[in-house]
Amino acid sequence: MHFTSEQRLDDGVVEREFALGEIPGILWMPASASASAPVPLILLGLPPLGLRRMHPRLADRARHAAASGYASATIELPGSGDRPRMPVVDQARADLRRALEAGEPVGDEIVDALVLPLVDKAVPEWQATLDALLALPEIGGPVGYSGGVISIGVRLARVEPRIAAAVLFAGSFVPRVMFDEARQVAIPLHVLLQWDDEGNDRQAALGLFDAFGSKEKSLHANMGGHTGVPQFAGDVADQFFTRHLS
Amino acid sequence: MHFTSEQRLDDGVVEREFALGEIPGILWMPASASASAPVPLILLGLPPLGLRRMHPRLADRARHAAASGYASATIELPGSGDRPRMPVVDQARADLRRALEAGEPVGDEIVDALVLPLVDKAVPEWQATLDALLALPEIGGPVGYSGGVISIGVRLARVEPRIAAAVLFAGSFVPRVMFDEARQVAIPLHVLLQWDDEGNDRQAALGLFDAFGSKEKSLHANMGGHTGVPQFAGDVADQFFTRHLS
Repeated sequence: MHFTSEQRLDDGVVEREFALGEIPGILWMPASASASAPVPLILLGLPPLGLRRMHPRLADRARHAAASGYASATIELPGSGDRPRMPVVDQARADLRRALEAGEPVGDEIVDALVLPLVDKAVPEWQATLDALLALPEIGGPVGYSGGVISIGVRLARVEPRIAAAVLFAGSFVPRVMFDEARQVAIPLHVLLQWDDEGNDRQAALGLFDAFGSKEKSLHANMGGHTGVPQFAGDVADQFFTRHLS
Repeated sequence: MHFTSEQRLDDGVVEREFALGEIPGILWMPASASASAPVPLILLGLPPLGLRRMHPRLADRARHAAASGYASATIELPGSGDRPRMPVVDQARADLRRALEAGEPVGDEIVDALVLPLVDKAVPEWQATLDALLALPEIGGPVGYSGGVISIGVRLARVEPRIAAAVLFAGSFVPRVMFDEARQVAIPLHVLLQWDDEGNDRQAALGLFDAFGSKEKSLHANMGGHTGVPQFAGDVADQFFTRHLS
């Protein structure tokens, strides 16, 4: 991991761009962090829209995390932004668009091809990022994961023991196999669901929540579209991390 | 309304028993309340288990409300405690028990007979109680409603314009007509659902949440049985009232 730029935001948060091999990422560090007072870390998951496009919303979440005393970090998803395309996923996205426009049901094979290659590639990248970040003296853990493609969050929660708690955003197109993986998740979960999200299959989201094996899991459903998570719901998610990362 | 007893609890909250005609009730007032600084009010709904039996849990909720600066009050449900029985409801409860023991589906006529007479009688009683409470100089409003039989909460939220916001506990056996009433509810709602509550029909609870007409409504589902609402979920409900009653 090498850092490529650094700037201090007006609230004292330091935003550092980095590259982990060919993967670009961003680390946000609260002013309070130091080698003698290392801070917890929140991994900020991304939708497949590209880091640059998501930057304002990410920086907002990072500032929120910093206000609670946490570092946060994100990396570009495989196939997004300037990273090499993933032809299988691109093909699946085209098939998906065609099916939706034709009003046809979206078959399992489309959903699997759209999501699983991304999960298979992104999860080890997140783990390598975590190795690098936890080697920094200012970061001590515990580690939380928040948002992004929900199937990536499910896989990470299942396989990565350094993640202590996760906030997941219910989103559509979850491969069937992820429901089995969800049963093996044991960490505390806070699941956000936008009840009237046009792009979301509500029953699938409720089914996935039901499947999680975690003894502590909460579902928070709110009104408003996909990006309309109300401020108070964000505050409640912050409190969830405060309970589990402090 | 006349007060029949008064005691000061150790945190300065004053607990006053009262009778409104033949209806017994309790009012809890925070130490801070006075005629020159009247406080908001939370109506604490009851399950049909009797005021005396519910007293410890109610006092706990009342202390919580008082800590946020709110008065709170409750009244005995029709047919509960020392109040005259409601033969129709008792008969429906016996029919319900018989159906459940026989493993038979619970028919609409049983649910209607179990719940609707209670709603029809309890809601005007709550409104009369509200008249009396709001006439006290130490109580100024706004008014919230919290808990108890969910159908009573739905009807109150629909018909009583002085109720500004409500916390509802999803419970089973909701008459079909209440789904229509739910569509006419417009106030902010915070709905608690115990996901694995053995005595609760989860799909009915989700359907009722979906039906509410309110622009702001949140569903908070947690693990644990019927009475196992986690402490953090109570805190989030407190924050909901803080947003809407302050």
